Amino acid sequence: MPAAPAYRRLSVEERRSQLLDAALTLFAHRAPEDVSLDDVAEAAGVSRPLVYRYFPGGKQQLYEAALRSAAEELEHCFDEPRHGPLLPRLARALDRYLGFVGRHDAGFSALLQGGSVVETSRTTAIVDGVRRAAAEHIYRHLGVAAPGPRLRMTVRMWITAVEAASLIWLDEGKEPDVEELRDWLVEQFVAVLTVTAARDAQTAQLVRDALAARD
Amino acid sequence: MPAAPAYRRLSVEERRSQLLDAALTLFAHRAPEDVSLDDVAEAAGVSRPLVYRYFPGGKQQLYEAALRSAAEELEHCFDEPRHGPLLPRLARALDRYLGFVGRHDAGFSALLQGGSVVETSRTTAIVDGVRRAAAEHIYRHLGVAAPGPRLRMTVRMWITAVEAASLIWLDEGKEPDVEELRDWLVEQFVAVLTVTAARDAQTAQLVRDALAARD
Repeated sequence: MPAAPAYRRLSVEERRSQLLDAALTLFAHRAPEDVSLDDVAEAAGVSRPLVYRYFPGGKQQLYEAALRSAAEELEHCFDEPRHGPLLPRLARALDRYLGFVGRHDAGFSALLQGGSVVETSRTTAIVDGVRRAAAEHIYRHLGVAAPGPRLRMTVRMWITAVEAASLIWLDEGKEPDVEELRDWLVEQFVAVLTVTAARDAQTAQLVRDALAARD
Repeated sequence: MPAAPAYRRLSVEERRSQLLDAALTLFAHRAPEDVSLDDVAEAAGVSRPLVYRYFPGGKQQLYEAALRSAAEELEHCFDEPRHGPLLPRLARALDRYLGFVGRHDAGFSALLQGGSVVETSRTTAIVDGVRRAAAEHIYRHLGVAAPGPRLRMTVRMWITAVEAASLIWLDEGKEPDVEELRDWLVEQFVAVLTVTAARDAQTAQLVRDALAARD
């Protein structure tokens, strides 16, 4: 196999993931409508026809594939082993999540805010899927098989608030620092669950069981 | 003036607001992409050319005007006199807001979730304007002329969480009842401000001053 990577023959999967990486990096720094297939070809050091061979649907297909790959990476953030005290687990998941947000920056904002030229109900469905997956991870960590409506509403409100915080955090040049933001979000999680506990027996039980084991 | 309202000659402003009302009612029950100008003409009991005379830009212009009129109504929800204890003021604003959400139902979801066929950056800007106005109202009620970054982030996160709660509430057939949802949202506001107070002197002062006067 030749040493120069530019001339190495990549497998279909390798080539595909090289193109997705290039696209993600571009989408991370520019709005999707400002990224062309030429840019992707140039960033990956390949020809435009090659990009089309892998993504015959053109920019829309590439954008969706890049989104899906970002969504998978995001979902992995919440894939934390279910042992040890709950709040440090949540803190580790948030560390990974905020790491993703920080790395993808403008691409993350574009992903969440939609409104791009290639926005479709399918991309909205991908983002909603990540939200749902995050909620499911949280229920599993809380040890709840059948979350009731008040617990579900609380968890979904917190997830939305975390998204809002991420966007504001990027807007404000990543202030406060990531450790402070993470701890603050964990504290808010505890606070809103505690508020709900006063109205909901299931949540009250959770707060007693899971959050009691804080250290 | 003749008694039969169908034959009464409306002023330009009356006619315009009649058409907007008809459009809002339609958008409230169907996604914007499922509403045609014919539907609006029929609902208002006028001819299609008349709708075009008032909204020569067609459906896009009518949709934006209806959005803008909904946005104005939403902004008025938060326009609460600034005297008396803070939390009852917030509760009254939330009552009006949830009343709006309940009345407009599917139209409210469509407004917030975007992704419609006529979605443009302008409609996104209208919705963002309402969010900003809501935040400004809250700062004024809190008596803060220059909210710092931590207070701003907290208020904006809470506003986003309230939006998420409204959408879930509509999804779940308006459960829990509106008074419980309102009180729950007020309690969450107090809880997240209290969490931020431990990290931010400005918010700590507010919590002492404004929230101390609870009854």
